Amino acid sequence: MTNSAPSFDAEFRGWLETLIAWRRDVRRFSVRPVPPDVIDHLLDVAQLAPSVGNSQPWRWVRVESPGKRAEIRANFLDCNDKARQAQPDRRADAYAALKLAGIDRAPVQFAIFCDRETGQGHGLGRLTMPEMLEYSVVGMITNFWLTARAAGLGVGWLSILEPARVAADLAVPPSWNFVAYLCVGWPEEEHLDPELERYGWQDRSDAGRKVKIV
Amino acid sequence: MTNSAPSFDAEFRGWLETLIAWRRDVRRFSVRPVPPDVIDHLLDVAQLAPSVGNSQPWRWVRVESPGKRAEIRANFLDCNDKARQAQPDRRADAYAALKLAGIDRAPVQFAIFCDRETGQGHGLGRLTMPEMLEYSVVGMITNFWLTARAAGLGVGWLSILEPARVAADLAVPPSWNFVAYLCVGWPEEEHLDPELERYGWQDRSDAGRKVKIV
Repeated sequence: MTNSAPSFDAEFRGWLETLIAWRRDVRRFSVRPVPPDVIDHLLDVAQLAPSVGNSQPWRWVRVESPGKRAEIRANFLDCNDKARQAQPDRRADAYAALKLAGIDRAPVQFAIFCDRETGQGHGLGRLTMPEMLEYSVVGMITNFWLTARAAGLGVGWLSILEPARVAADLAVPPSWNFVAYLCVGWPEEEHLDPELERYGWQDRSDAGRKVKIV
Repeated sequence: MTNSAPSFDAEFRGWLETLIAWRRDVRRFSVRPVPPDVIDHLLDVAQLAPSVGNSQPWRWVRVESPGKRAEIRANFLDCNDKARQAQPDRRADAYAALKLAGIDRAPVQFAIFCDRETGQGHGLGRLTMPEMLEYSVVGMITNFWLTARAAGLGVGWLSILEPARVAADLAVPPSWNFVAYLCVGWPEEEHLDPELERYGWQDRSDAGRKVKIV
């Protein structure tokens, strides 16, 4: 609450950049369990994420039961099949060869929602941009991802799902909008390059590095 | 590209949590300029953010000219007036007393867009959730925010703007969806508690810390 703010030295900044560079979307997990206190601590730190109007609209569902995991998996398989069919013929085989989800093995799995009707924040900052609520959830997930990686854990964000079906399967309140399905566990492999680059799907480009100045 | 992944020690993890705890939405800036190489480096690191299908859909516009800054400011003032009127009477004065933007002083200002029609990524991961493109931009912004804070810089995310008007004023391509207006500079004050908490607008709660288990 004071002005005695910390100062971050060059060594820390260097490690932070290493963390950012090595953070990957992980789909290949060991089945080794994750100690509950490790997850609890990550969830505590995640609460410190920014949110529009201090609304903290993230809502967590931990998917543990084999039945619920099977429903999520069926949702993924259906969506993934449609996505493969939506690819042009020349890319359909390449698409089918990608590993896009760790739901078969990840020991910890969360569905994360955004409560679109939370009163917290009193609407501040979202009159013209209601999507700021979801963006706040995404900022929290990004923090979670980095702190998990710093603890040696991998995170995979699965988006090949029908959002309304996830919400129905998990029986969440109608105001909860599905944002992400996160697979969490110890990674089986570590790589500096993204999996989609390594398997020839999509290289990085400099399109997002250019800055238009007005 | 190898398996020689870095291991992050307890000291680093402690500082990372300190960084996350002290990262604030900054609206009170010094006018002291920010060296261009500091911003360039932050933009380089931002490229390493995760993105759906490795699409990297973020597009940067740096708003420098007094004319363009005045247009953004007029947009903000109009939206802020509407937002104040949308508050219940008992909160309208409290709303008016808040400082919600640093656009009057922040030396560096960016409008950040999402290119909804980028071919990069070949559509992967966004057939059922097209909003994953915007979420990727938000993840990048979160990384940028943390690395900026580690460098001693403050960032303020302004969302009290009419998105279509920002796009029109800055004359960006029609496929660019406005995501964020970022004010960047050296903060005048440092606080551990969020400004909205300090000024009595909205305390933090534990609603986002509960985990439903299924």
